[in-house]
Amino acid sequence: MGANKKIKVLQQAIEKKMKSLSKREGFIYKPIDYILTAGGKRLRPIITLLAAESVGGNYRNILDAAVAVELLHTFTLVHDDIIDNADSRRGIETIHKKWCTNTAILAGDMLAGIAYKSLLKTRGDKLPEIAKVFTNAFITVCEGQDLDIEYGKKDLISVGQYYEMINKKTACLISAAAEIGAIAGGGSKQQVTALRNYGTNLGIAFQIKDDLLDVTGEAGKLGKPIGKDILEGKKTILLLKALEIAEPDDLALLKQVAKRQLIGNKKTESVKKIYHRLGVTEFARKEIVRYTLKAKRNISGLKANEATGLLTDLAEKIIHRNS
Amino acid sequence: MGANKKIKVLQQAIEKKMKSLSKREGFIYKPIDYILTAGGKRLRPIITLLAAESVGGNYRNILDAAVAVELLHTFTLVHDDIIDNADSRRGIETIHKKWCTNTAILAGDMLAGIAYKSLLKTRGDKLPEIAKVFTNAFITVCEGQDLDIEYGKKDLISVGQYYEMINKKTACLISAAAEIGAIAGGGSKQQVTALRNYGTNLGIAFQIKDDLLDVTGEAGKLGKPIGKDILEGKKTILLLKALEIAEPDDLALLKQVAKRQLIGNKKTESVKKIYHRLGVTEFARKEIVRYTLKAKRNISGLKANEATGLLTDLAEKIIHRNS
Repeated sequence: MGANKKIKVLQQAIEKKMKSLSKREGFIYKPIDYILTAGGKRLRPIITLLAAESVGGNYRNILDAAVAVELLHTFTLVHDDIIDNADSRRGIETIHKKWCTNTAILAGDMLAGIAYKSLLKTRGDKLPEIAKVFTNAFITVCEGQDLDIEYGKKDLISVGQYYEMINKKTACLISAAAEIGAIAGGGSKQQVTALRNYGTNLGIAFQIKDDLLDVTGEAGKLGKPIGKDILEGKKTILLLKALEIAEPDDLALLKQVAKRQLIGNKKTESVKKIYHRLGVTEFARKEIVRYTLKAKRNISGLKANEATGLLTDLAEKIIHRNS
Repeated sequence: MGANKKIKVLQQAIEKKMKSLSKREGFIYKPIDYILTAGGKRLRPIITLLAAESVGGNYRNILDAAVAVELLHTFTLVHDDIIDNADSRRGIETIHKKWCTNTAILAGDMLAGIAYKSLLKTRGDKLPEIAKVFTNAFITVCEGQDLDIEYGKKDLISVGQYYEMINKKTACLISAAAEIGAIAGGGSKQQVTALRNYGTNLGIAFQIKDDLLDVTGEAGKLGKPIGKDILEGKKTILLLKALEIAEPDDLALLKQVAKRQLIGNKKTESVKKIYHRLGVTEFARKEIVRYTLKAKRNISGLKANEATGLLTDLAEKIIHRNS
């Protein structure tokens, strides 16, 4: 099967499962259906399914757990969007904008519950272990969001703090996606560790790419506004690195960004120019390559099969993704 | 061991477990510790422990699951308080008032995650079954909160809709508390069903008592303001029954309540007087007795032991509780 064809098969299987969750009675299922059918890359459940197949499992037996990971991810997005006061997500209005904050709180809560419901359909004696990985990711993502909020209020954080934050906020769930697939697919301890580490490094690369796309991305492709991180003073790796190396001339504007005092798209463009001139966009690109290489190396010892190849491709795609 | 002494032993064991969860690093653990140490009756985990002992289990082995139930309950309270814009809970300021809405959203999410973490510590092969009951309760409580919001916007709902709402919003988690204890304690299918039904009926009685206390309760004892349901136009059994039987003279004011058009404590007092005059407070009292009787009957077939006796006492206490 061709690489794209297999991914499409997995995507369709995921979408089918997702759709089977919807159309329940009750008002609150409307925003839930709305966000579940809004698309998205389904990166995490695809990783779960590929991880399972890379260790000899069959993706059909892991679908409930894979969908659970996507549901957990969606739950965090719905609540994060309230917290970040985001207007759009996956190219559509966020739930709290289309309905209200209360609806978004409750819809997010429901998604977390439905995520566990899906997870618990997983058969076999691996369920307690899978549920523990899943729950640790749940808690860690919340801790990461907490750091994101707290660091957002500070004028400066260290690069170490940045990596701690993205590890918790983004990498941990991608890591859990891979680990759950590896466990459910019957992987050995060594294989599970390899895939967990793959997920962590891929997740870090993914988040740095997210930071980069806020600067280099094209409006309309990303599903959310460009330059948002700059306007919100998010502590991205680009900002932190720029603050580290900038000359006094540029430093004033960068400090404005860090202090969330920057207003207007014109200023955003000036900041982007500084990023390019200082080479921090290039630095971010190199970090992405470095972490995707790490991810690929993590799984280089696994038996070569279609799924392992696709996981390697996925890492490559992170470098080139533009949405 | 005397009745009160046993309950105290269980309460202390629960508090000890709860405290072991706190004192984690990170900003978000402050509001979590704050709400976890704010007291509360711990009704649900006590029911879990007693249910386990009533079927021959040892409460010490069920503590993690019992605490998980309390954590899940606390999670729903934190988010419900945002949605209801409540100022106080358990006699202290609500998290979203003391901190902010974003903190309360995240603290609630964390509590749900920590609840599962505690639940998953449960040993033995009953974990998947317990987790399913727990997760169904999670989803059902959210559905109940959804109904509460939706019915709150309507001018009238039927008594049937009221019972559906309190079943989902309140009774389901108390029922799950009992069922989880029964399963974890090694109860037979029949015993599990008996304790589940006990929880459901106790939960209904508990919620009707909550409705009643909003009218007859004493300020300061309840940990939340009296007359709040009237001011917010909550569809309590008292309001619904009063709307059913009131003469035109009283009906105008009651309709104002239902339409959330009532303002001021003086008017609240007038509504209370109507409730008393129409006998709907008395009706609510009778309903509480009816459902606690049902609950007691549900477990009358269980082997008589200390725990079964205490579960029967608990049902009795619901009738007389004033906080």
